[in-house]
Amino acid sequence: MKKLKNLLGFVPGNVKLYQMAFRHKSVAKLIKEGVKNSNERLEFLGDAVLGSVVAELLFKLYPYKDEGFLTEMRSKIVSRANLNQLARKLGLNELIQYDARMISYQNKQGSLLGDAFEALVGAVYLDKGYQFTREFLLSRIIKPHVDIHTLENTETNFKSRLIEWCQQEGKDVQFVQTDNPEGESSKMFSILVQVNGEVCGLGRDFNKKSAEKLAAERACEFLKIIESV
Amino acid sequence: MKKLKNLLGFVPGNVKLYQMAFRHKSVAKLIKEGVKNSNERLEFLGDAVLGSVVAELLFKLYPYKDEGFLTEMRSKIVSRANLNQLARKLGLNELIQYDARMISYQNKQGSLLGDAFEALVGAVYLDKGYQFTREFLLSRIIKPHVDIHTLENTETNFKSRLIEWCQQEGKDVQFVQTDNPEGESSKMFSILVQVNGEVCGLGRDFNKKSAEKLAAERACEFLKIIESV
Repeated sequence: MKKLKNLLGFVPGNVKLYQMAFRHKSVAKLIKEGVKNSNERLEFLGDAVLGSVVAELLFKLYPYKDEGFLTEMRSKIVSRANLNQLARKLGLNELIQYDARMISYQNKQGSLLGDAFEALVGAVYLDKGYQFTREFLLSRIIKPHVDIHTLENTETNFKSRLIEWCQQEGKDVQFVQTDNPEGESSKMFSILVQVNGEVCGLGRDFNKKSAEKLAAERACEFLKIIESV
Repeated sequence: MKKLKNLLGFVPGNVKLYQMAFRHKSVAKLIKEGVKNSNERLEFLGDAVLGSVVAELLFKLYPYKDEGFLTEMRSKIVSRANLNQLARKLGLNELIQYDARMISYQNKQGSLLGDAFEALVGAVYLDKGYQFTREFLLSRIIKPHVDIHTLENTETNFKSRLIEWCQQEGKDVQFVQTDNPEGESSKMFSILVQVNGEVCGLGRDFNKKSAEKLAAERACEFLKIIESV
C-alpha cells in the first residue's frame, strides 16, 4: 500500500482496482466462465487511454509533423520494450503478483511488466477519470521517465534487427522481390522475406525500400523477434 | 455552418478546427515543408480518442468478457467499413472538401469518409475536451447509430471475404501449410495464402484454423480488400 502510494503520488480511491492491475493471470481466479480477475481487461482499457494521452502529447509537441511521424513516435513510446523499461524504472516488479512457476522468467517477465503498467493506467482511469490520468501520465510518468527526443532519433530498423537475429540463430535470410498479384502493370513493389527458405514476411509499397522495411517488420513479428503491435 | 451545428448538436467553439477536420489532403495547402493543413493530423488524434472512448464503453458493457473479445469488438466498431458507413449516415459527405479529380471515387471515397469522421472526433476533443467528446460520441453517435449487439454477432470472416474477392476478380487462391522456420519439432502451424501463385499473406499459430484465419486477414490487408488496422 505504501509502495503503491509512492508510485502513484496520490492516495488511491478504489484499492481493488489497483490490486487487479497487478494481478497476472497466472495467479488470478475464475470469476465467471471464461473470465479471470486478472489484469488483462484493465490492460485493454489502459492501453487505449495511454494511446490517447500520448497522441495528444505528440500532436501538440510536434505541430509541423505529419501523421506518419506522429504514428511512428507513438509506436516507439508505447512499444512493449519501452513500456517494460518504464515499468521497471517505476518499480512495478515489486508490486506485480504472478506465479513464477508458470512463467518462464526470461521469455515472459518482460511483457508482464509492460502489461501491468497498461493495466495500472486503466485502474487510474476508472478510479480518477481521464483528466486526472492524463495529468498523472504526463507529469509523473512521461516527463520524468521518457526521453521523447532521444526516441525521435532512434530508428527502429527492422531489417537490421532481423538480419542480426538470423546471424545469431545461424539462419539464412533473403529479401526477394516478387511479381504483383495485380499483374505487371502495377507500380507496387512486393518484397518477400525468406528465412531458411521459408516465407516469414511480406511487404508491399510504391517504394521498394518501404516494402522491404514492412516485410522485415512483419518477419520480425512472425518470428516473435518483436511483439506485434 | 448550419449543417455542422445540426450534425454536432452543439455550437462549435473553434470553427477552424472543424474546417480542418473536413479538409482532405487533395485540397489542402502546404503550411510548412512537408505538412499540409489537411485533416490527417486530426485523424491521428481522433482515432486515439475514439479508441479510448470505445474501449471504456466495451469494458463496462461486457464485464464478463475477456480482453480478446473486447479487442475484437473494438476492431469491428472502429473498422474503416463501419466508420465509413457511420460517416455517411451522419451526412459527412456533404461537409468534406476534396478534389474529385484527384480521387478515384470508388477506391477512395470510402476511406475519405471514415478518415473525416475520425478527424471530426479530434476536432471535438481539442475544442471541448475529453469528457465532452465522450458524451458526444456515446449519446449522439454510438447509441443512435451503432448497433453493438448486431456487430457482436457478425463474424469478420476473412477467409470467406478473400475467397469471394478472388472469385470476383477471377483469381486463383490457395492455402498452403509450410514448414516452420524453427524446424520440424515446432508445434506451430504456418499457413501461406497464395493468389495466382503469389504469396499474399501468412499466419502462424498453435492452432491450424487460427493460423489460416490470420493468413487470410493478412492477405486481405495485403490486397487492400480491407484496411489495415
